[in-house]
Amino acid sequence: MLKIGIIGAGRIGRVHCESITRYVKNAVVKAIADPFITEETAKWAKDKGISEIYDDYKKILADKEIDAVLICSSTDTHSAISLDAIAAGKHVFCEKPIDHDVKKICKVLDALKESKVKYQVGFNRRFDHNFRAAQEAVAQGKIGDLNLVKICSRDPGAPPVEYIKVSGGIFLDMTIHDFDMVRYLSGSEVTEVFAYGQVLVDKAIGDAGDIDTAVITMKLANGALAVIDNCRRASYGYDQRAEVFGSLGQVAISNDTVSNAVISDANGVHAEKPLNFFLERYMGAYVAEVNEFIDSIVNDTPVPVDAVSGLEAVLIGLAAKKSLRLNAPVKLDDIRKEYSL
Amino acid sequence: MLKIGIIGAGRIGRVHCESITRYVKNAVVKAIADPFITEETAKWAKDKGISEIYDDYKKILADKEIDAVLICSSTDTHSAISLDAIAAGKHVFCEKPIDHDVKKICKVLDALKESKVKYQVGFNRRFDHNFRAAQEAVAQGKIGDLNLVKICSRDPGAPPVEYIKVSGGIFLDMTIHDFDMVRYLSGSEVTEVFAYGQVLVDKAIGDAGDIDTAVITMKLANGALAVIDNCRRASYGYDQRAEVFGSLGQVAISNDTVSNAVISDANGVHAEKPLNFFLERYMGAYVAEVNEFIDSIVNDTPVPVDAVSGLEAVLIGLAAKKSLRLNAPVKLDDIRKEYSL
Amino acid sequence: MLKIGIIGAGRIGRVHCESITRYVKNAVVKAIADPFITEETAKWAKDKGISEIYDDYKKILADKEIDAVLICSSTDTHSAISLDAIAAGKHVFCEKPIDHDVKKICKVLDALKESKVKYQVGFNRRFDHNFRAAQEAVAQGKIGDLNLVKICSRDPGAPPVEYIKVSGGIFLDMTIHDFDMVRYLSGSEVTEVFAYGQVLVDKAIGDAGDIDTAVITMKLANGALAVIDNCRRASYGYDQRAEVFGSLGQVAISNDTVSNAVISDANGVHAEKPLNFFLERYMGAYVAEVNEFIDSIVNDTPVPVDAVSGLEAVLIGLAAKKSLRLNAPVKLDDIRKEYSL
Amino acid sequence: MLKIGIIGAGRIGRVHCESITRYVKNAVVKAIADPFITEETAKWAKDKGISEIYDDYKKILADKEIDAVLICSSTDTHSAISLDAIAAGKHVFCEKPIDHDVKKICKVLDALKESKVKYQVGFNRRFDHNFRAAQEAVAQGKIGDLNLVKICSRDPGAPPVEYIKVSGGIFLDMTIHDFDMVRYLSGSEVTEVFAYGQVLVDKAIGDAGDIDTAVITMKLANGALAVIDNCRRASYGYDQRAEVFGSLGQVAISNDTVSNAVISDANGVHAEKPLNFFLERYMGAYVAEVNEFIDSIVNDTPVPVDAVSGLEAVLIGLAAKKSLRLNAPVKLDDIRKEYSL
Repeated sequence: MLKIGIIGAGRIGRVHCESITRYVKNAVVKAIADPFITEETAKWAKDKGISEIYDDYKKILADKEIDAVLICSSTDTHSAISLDAIAAGKHVFCEKPIDHDVKKICKVLDALKESKVKYQVGFNRRFDHNFRAAQEAVAQGKIGDLNLVKICSRDPGAPPVEYIKVSGGIFLDMTIHDFDMVRYLSGSEVTEVFAYGQVLVDKAIGDAGDIDTAVITMKLANGALAVIDNCRRASYGYDQRAEVFGSLGQVAISNDTVSNAVISDANGVHAEKPLNFFLERYMGAYVAEVNEFIDSIVNDTPVPVDAVSGLEAVLIGLAAKKSLRLNAPVKLDDIRKEYSL
Repeated sequence: MLKIGIIGAGRIGRVHCESITRYVKNAVVKAIADPFITEETAKWAKDKGISEIYDDYKKILADKEIDAVLICSSTDTHSAISLDAIAAGKHVFCEKPIDHDVKKICKVLDALKESKVKYQVGFNRRFDHNFRAAQEAVAQGKIGDLNLVKICSRDPGAPPVEYIKVSGGIFLDMTIHDFDMVRYLSGSEVTEVFAYGQVLVDKAIGDAGDIDTAVITMKLANGALAVIDNCRRASYGYDQRAEVFGSLGQVAISNDTVSNAVISDANGVHAEKPLNFFLERYMGAYVAEVNEFIDSIVNDTPVPVDAVSGLEAVLIGLAAKKSLRLNAPVKLDDIRKEYSL
Repeated sequence: MLKIGIIGAGRIGRVHCESITRYVKNAVVKAIADPFITEETAKWAKDKGISEIYDDYKKILADKEIDAVLICSSTDTHSAISLDAIAAGKHVFCEKPIDHDVKKICKVLDALKESKVKYQVGFNRRFDHNFRAAQEAVAQGKIGDLNLVKICSRDPGAPPVEYIKVSGGIFLDMTIHDFDMVRYLSGSEVTEVFAYGQVLVDKAIGDAGDIDTAVITMKLANGALAVIDNCRRASYGYDQRAEVFGSLGQVAISNDTVSNAVISDANGVHAEKPLNFFLERYMGAYVAEVNEFIDSIVNDTPVPVDAVSGLEAVLIGLAAKKSLRLNAPVKLDDIRKEYSL
Repeated sequence: MLKIGIIGAGRIGRVHCESITRYVKNAVVKAIADPFITEETAKWAKDKGISEIYDDYKKILADKEIDAVLICSSTDTHSAISLDAIAAGKHVFCEKPIDHDVKKICKVLDALKESKVKYQVGFNRRFDHNFRAAQEAVAQGKIGDLNLVKICSRDPGAPPVEYIKVSGGIFLDMTIHDFDMVRYLSGSEVTEVFAYGQVLVDKAIGDAGDIDTAVITMKLANGALAVIDNCRRASYGYDQRAEVFGSLGQVAISNDTVSNAVISDANGVHAEKPLNFFLERYMGAYVAEVNEFIDSIVNDTPVPVDAVSGLEAVLIGLAAKKSLRLNAPVKLDDIRKEYSL
């Protein structure tokens, strides 16, 4: 029975805590840490059977009984806490992204080279039943040689502009999941990126220096192409679809709904909208990713999403940002050179 | 080039005339006959290049050049005209049903025994692309041994009560297509029928001695079961679906629509209603059935829907009527005995 | 925090235990009882934090701390344990059916009249997301006045013949869920039943005096019709669909799948089969039914599926059995008279 | 009754001839011209009731009775014949593209400025039931303000390399339909293009200087974005889909199939592939475009696809070619400047 410490008691920290308590066989949450812990959170943690509640995450790292930590704090603290956790010999599950700053990610990668701890990044969509079925079809050769990966990823509504301002921009905040998905579905690396972006949802997003609608095209190392379309707001809900097209055929995945009820009436044939909220859509994935993280510790096997994947998605995001700024395609190698990678 | 005479210049007579003119390679319409021919119809016929327009169908039968006739007159004249046409040595395509009176159908069957003319009954749905695909899947063994045939058949709206009164009742007027479809899809004969019926659409239909909503269950000679549900009115259009279930699986067919456009908005995901009108839904089938009729004459091969099929569907309809009246299952053999068949 | 005792540690007992432990907020499982408790089960129960493990369910009833019991033992013990539990003042959740014997069910109903305990029957499908969406559409008037309820219910494979022999027959064992669903979806009572049945899956089932394929048609008190088709084996999985058709339209629900991935290749367009196992398909429903049971105790509100529903489904099943035997429709009132109801 | 001359007796010329003969009310084909007319073609034309068969199209232009011509000859002759036909005062329906050479298209545009003849370009997909339904949804405001047009357009198989060599390249030969569709669906002009292309289907296509797989992104004058993905070969058939996404929602269209039969078996749930051949998929569109052309002459109303649309699609194609060559986005205005437009 592994003992887990959760760092960060916000929404995602609680999601992981719930799913470990309910579903993860070989793990129990022993401690939670958050500098701004409220009475309500403390009560909630007690109810979940969490014995230790701290305001300083270092107390978790100091606890010899704790085997692994989940870093669910704000993005700007991920890399520093990662380094501390690795130094303390704790296995780490870190929410995405490791950082927006490539150099800080590289420090984590360097620390991992000299350590035996497991380090997994929270690209939860890789564990979604639909995306995984698509990936398996590709990996099993059902679509033959890869020609094209297409991802449609639209949020049900834009976050507050205050969030946008510190988000790192749409490519590092939202598209980063889709960049990882291109790598996951294709089994190949992105070599070049071209991005078009517009402000069509909310002028305030543009005033904050960001865009809200984008189409990003990519070349992959295996010769295939990829294209992502993003929007911060889809009136009909959280739109998360993908297609992978190859020499033998295509695999396509679509959205999930609360029910499959279809009503036919004098106005047409009506089905339900996609699930509207990422926690509804991906709850199974949040459970699965932590389960596989625990399994990789218990069985000493590689984690399913390693720190390099965390770095690569950020590099693609930076290439997209640069491409949008320059209105020109940007090679990933040029981004790597900037960081001497 | 076969020369065709069309008997009856109403809606279905014109449909066949149009489709022969447009699509049927080896046939041309030479004459049309209708006792109540209007100026407008005469003009229409002229435009179609039909040289002879009669009020008496016997003039068509007397024309030596004419090879075949399509009987598109009112149901009560079908059997008498059939007998005359057979006597005149014309090949016959007769709209369904041959008659509501089994004895009159039998006279047609008797006449055919001593004749070499082709005689086809207008069960157009057998020629529909969807129903045919289902039948082919069954015939090719894709669903294995038959367990169950399910047919859903609902009209977009009830006909006028005046029509209902002379229609022979829902089972002989509307369900007769579905009875034929059970035989077509299963490749087996119906041996017993049980019918439930209600008046739920229009009280006037009940006052006219008919029902408007029905569920009919059947036993088939091969051991399988069948069930049909009917309604005179479906708010969302002409609902024509079928499923055939067997030991290896199931084949299901659904409705056609004008387009496959799907609109997703804040209220849901919306597709088009089924095609609303039988001529839209089955236009391809009307063309195909006449094409195959002409082919069977040209190549001297069996017609795809013979007169026996015309009789069997009526017998099942009579069994259903009796079952509804008695509130008990009725064996087809008992109906046959009533008519010494 | 309600304290629960589970009577019967077989598959379904464990399912409920797991779901209470994981998902039910206001309840905890204190005890489990089973006359044939194994070491493995005892260990499993310990792991779940169940403090008391008994071989005699009466020890659960004697525990003053326990508020409610879940009866998950074999069907023939349901009614006797129900009576004991009611006498002990415990709230009861009883797996379906209460009994195959109407008189024994009536004794439970009588006992409930003089008691204040809550008594819920385990018709889990009422809590399934799809069936519930259909019921809500009907209840909200979206399809107008009811014309027809259609249920397709097919198992992925037949149970062992030894099970068939003690099952009470397909109508009381399998169709009973569908009979309840007709009542649930229609909001109306069944007044008459006609059943056709065949042995098409396995001759051994016929030798055991049962059938494996059936079509059951029903009249409802509100004038609508209903039809159920059953089969003990569908090669493509657990087939659980329904349609409700009314004056304004239709609501239809279909099967769930592991993923919505669709593969297009040179052979066609391929989607996944329905979920194959009832626990996969209805796990959400098992959780929801117990949650609502607990809620009805905590809030002292009516249970969502009462004991009368348990009785009615059995009465319809008995009518179907009699109809099959007599090959004639059977009125529910005649069944009631047999039992002086 | 308009009299029509068809110039070019190849596949598409015959398609139009058949559809005018069968479906177009106010027109009849009087003459056909082709420099390489065969005996078989002459016989076919006679059967269709075409009285005049020429090897020189100028004989058609000289026929005072002929009101309109359909130019169905090889692409390199389109603009010259167009000029001759306009000079002869004939209305013109010209297959796409008018020419690959912008200057030659401009000459046609110039000639049209001083003429009253109708001139329609054969972008048949605008008349397809699905694409039209999508366009109508957009035009009716059902998706609100436009954010993104997505087109997937894949052929069932690559043409011979000999064809590829003279095709003008994938963008002018295949994508040109999709460029027109972007304009049609969006109701806006393309202002900038970026194209990625690869050779993934057949190395011989690359050797011929062309690509077979492409993703083209575009900026539109109304601020929206557009993306097209193309492939010369989809194993599962002719893949022609589109989505238009806006502030209020999305409209999506998919492929048509021969039937909607779905087979469920132990391996999954199987539907038919898309229609494999463009004449099957778009036959209704070929009929509709000529019908609307005739209508615009009869009623003296604007044609539904004017010569400017023919020019614009070529300009976008040239921008895409240039973008691919430069690996940089290309503004349409820069292309216009090259041609002093």
